[in-house]
Amino acid sequence: MGNYTKPIDLKYSDRIQQVPRSFIRDILKVASSPEIISFAGGLPNRKYFPVKELSESTARVMKNQASTALQYSLTSGLPKLREIIATFYTNQGLNIPIENILITTGSQQALDLIGKTFINEGDTVLLEEPSYLGAIQAFSMYRPKFKAIELQADGINIEKWEEAIKHDQPKFTYMIPNFQNPTGISYSLQKRKEVAKRAIENNSLLIEDDPYGKIRFSGEHLPNIFSLAPNNTILLGSFSKIIVPGFRLGWVIADKKIINKLEVAKQAADLHTDVFVQHIVIDFLKHNDLNTHLNKILKAYKTQADSICDAMAEYLPENFTFTKPQGGMFTWVTMPNNYSSLKVFNEAQKRNMAFVPGVPFYIDRKDASTMRLNFSCSEPNIINEGIKRLAKAIEQLYPSKF
Amino acid sequence: MGNYTKPIDLKYSDRIQQVPRSFIRDILKVASSPEIISFAGGLPNRKYFPVKELSESTARVMKNQASTALQYSLTSGLPKLREIIATFYTNQGLNIPIENILITTGSQQALDLIGKTFINEGDTVLLEEPSYLGAIQAFSMYRPKFKAIELQADGINIEKWEEAIKHDQPKFTYMIPNFQNPTGISYSLQKRKEVAKRAIENNSLLIEDDPYGKIRFSGEHLPNIFSLAPNNTILLGSFSKIIVPGFRLGWVIADKKIINKLEVAKQAADLHTDVFVQHIVIDFLKHNDLNTHLNKILKAYKTQADSICDAMAEYLPENFTFTKPQGGMFTWVTMPNNYSSLKVFNEAQKRNMAFVPGVPFYIDRKDASTMRLNFSCSEPNIINEGIKRLAKAIEQLYPSKF
Repeated sequence: MGNYTKPIDLKYSDRIQQVPRSFIRDILKVASSPEIISFAGGLPNRKYFPVKELSESTARVMKNQASTALQYSLTSGLPKLREIIATFYTNQGLNIPIENILITTGSQQALDLIGKTFINEGDTVLLEEPSYLGAIQAFSMYRPKFKAIELQADGINIEKWEEAIKHDQPKFTYMIPNFQNPTGISYSLQKRKEVAKRAIENNSLLIEDDPYGKIRFSGEHLPNIFSLAPNNTILLGSFSKIIVPGFRLGWVIADKKIINKLEVAKQAADLHTDVFVQHIVIDFLKHNDLNTHLNKILKAYKTQADSICDAMAEYLPENFTFTKPQGGMFTWVTMPNNYSSLKVFNEAQKRNMAFVPGVPFYIDRKDASTMRLNFSCSEPNIINEGIKRLAKAIEQLYPSKF
Repeated sequence: MGNYTKPIDLKYSDRIQQVPRSFIRDILKVASSPEIISFAGGLPNRKYFPVKELSESTARVMKNQASTALQYSLTSGLPKLREIIATFYTNQGLNIPIENILITTGSQQALDLIGKTFINEGDTVLLEEPSYLGAIQAFSMYRPKFKAIELQADGINIEKWEEAIKHDQPKFTYMIPNFQNPTGISYSLQKRKEVAKRAIENNSLLIEDDPYGKIRFSGEHLPNIFSLAPNNTILLGSFSKIIVPGFRLGWVIADKKIINKLEVAKQAADLHTDVFVQHIVIDFLKHNDLNTHLNKILKAYKTQADSICDAMAEYLPENFTFTKPQGGMFTWVTMPNNYSSLKVFNEAQKRNMAFVPGVPFYIDRKDASTMRLNFSCSEPNIINEGIKRLAKAIEQLYPSKF
């Protein structure tokens, strides 16, 4: 700016000094060239956005409710939208009053509000290892001590987790039991029950982040841990993967006392979430069957998940393992311990293929022998070609291992 | 919820324990009955929402850009929207690159991000006395020591302010130089120049909150302090009062280094602001002349401001003073020191009239002899009747003083 001459000496807060630049953002910059086959993103497939239906809803809202839909509104979110969200859980035997639901500016805001409401500097927060980067970033702002607990193929390592609860007295444990980002792993029914039981026994708080719960394309729907331990659980949901992410609409379900505190934090954070898009989503869900819409997404994602698993089985070395996801948007490749995902990333990039190395999903950000691969945005033939390129990059780096 | 049986023992953060329930929210609940004449709100007048134009823009965005406008997007906000915002300041001789602009989820989010980025617990923050409640709430979350500096009829008390800067080494000073909420006071040109000069001399950071700058209906536009001390100032703006508040769209302008830090905080807070409404506002401003739209608002607000000032001059006791605002949405009544605005509020309520007692706009939340009156949402005849009722309430409580 022409007017800037002598920048003043700035004193930032300690918390902002500590937060590292987003690793994924740098990777996505690399991955954005059109010639690259990228499994690096984390986007829902825009082909399945219900554009026509949302256009109709938008026109109706503008015609019938404009002056309310464009004015300031309630911090807690529209009651009608909260009623609709409550119905998402009735098939689990839950009857959730709207006072237990808070609308948030995307699920990400719920993570920030939870951090703000619960974490004092130095408090312990337990996470799965690996865990969702956005949660690590949001909680980091409140300067907790993180402790990462091994994530196994059927969910968190229960014994190690309970040991940490008893030893570290954490403020809460953050979990993604359905089709986790980054690993695609889902908790078994048995593990869900164990988690609920031990949380109750230890009087310990859980954050159950569930953005992908309705994106199950194989296997049977399993209950939210919230339904098994409602007094111990704060449940997060989102419209980003089931309708569209651009609206930034999510929700929190919890005990009323907790919701009241989160609402105070939300009022200070942004007064309320865009109420225009809240009206649009209410109208959309009134005039359209959500399951009919979801089935289109599930069909495509299942085909793409099958494609990536088939290609990995065919082209990747035999000593590699990977998740066969039953839902969500990601799979996770584990290479032998001494392999470097950063080196593989650089080599794959030369072959116009990209993914996210496992690094940012671990608390200590060391190099990792793991990779996150997104399958929601690529057609099967592209997926096949992308995995071929990945296999060549690995062969180039680690030839003797093939 | 039927499922809640034994709520667990919750340990909240210290910061959330301290934030009091919103005083204004309780008052607005009282003021929401239809028979009440309320000057308590802080809403722009929905009569002047450009509904037809926004409907057209929304339809065009859905037709031409749906898949981008509904997908995840940039944390910094759409470049085109930032370009448009930059043009708002060219008449002040400013040429602002888009790298210096961050889109926020309403101006309120900018306050939260600034608190997060700058305030360590115990840092001093300087405010005008009285100040905007939303800023006090947002900054409170980061547990600063507040120090309030007298606000005079032409702006902050410069000598007391500079003394506080030298003595307390504040992280920043928060100011609303145009038509302040709650007082309606604007800084004179002279005071703006003095503030800029002393901020530069003392190497001190200013937060210039300017949601009402374009809502000037009398007098001449005065420069933002940002234009006089760009290295020392973070400037906040908002579409809430010039287009619609329901979209939750605001912006921050600052040095690139500061914007980078705020962007890290924003990514952790909500990833990005609703990109659908960003597209709508871009389209609206491309197809409509903002000044033509603003002139309708200004004409109405001027008539209403004149009405409330005329009515106050006619009905209120002579020893009362009030702001004659040149813009914005509020006026501010100062009663003799020993009068209680809380008592007046209760008495006015019995007469179906409401306003906001001055209390929540002061750091120490004692009773106050001041009142905030909003004039943007009432017709002149209603305004006249409301002030009559207020005068009767005052006469009932303080009869000898008339």
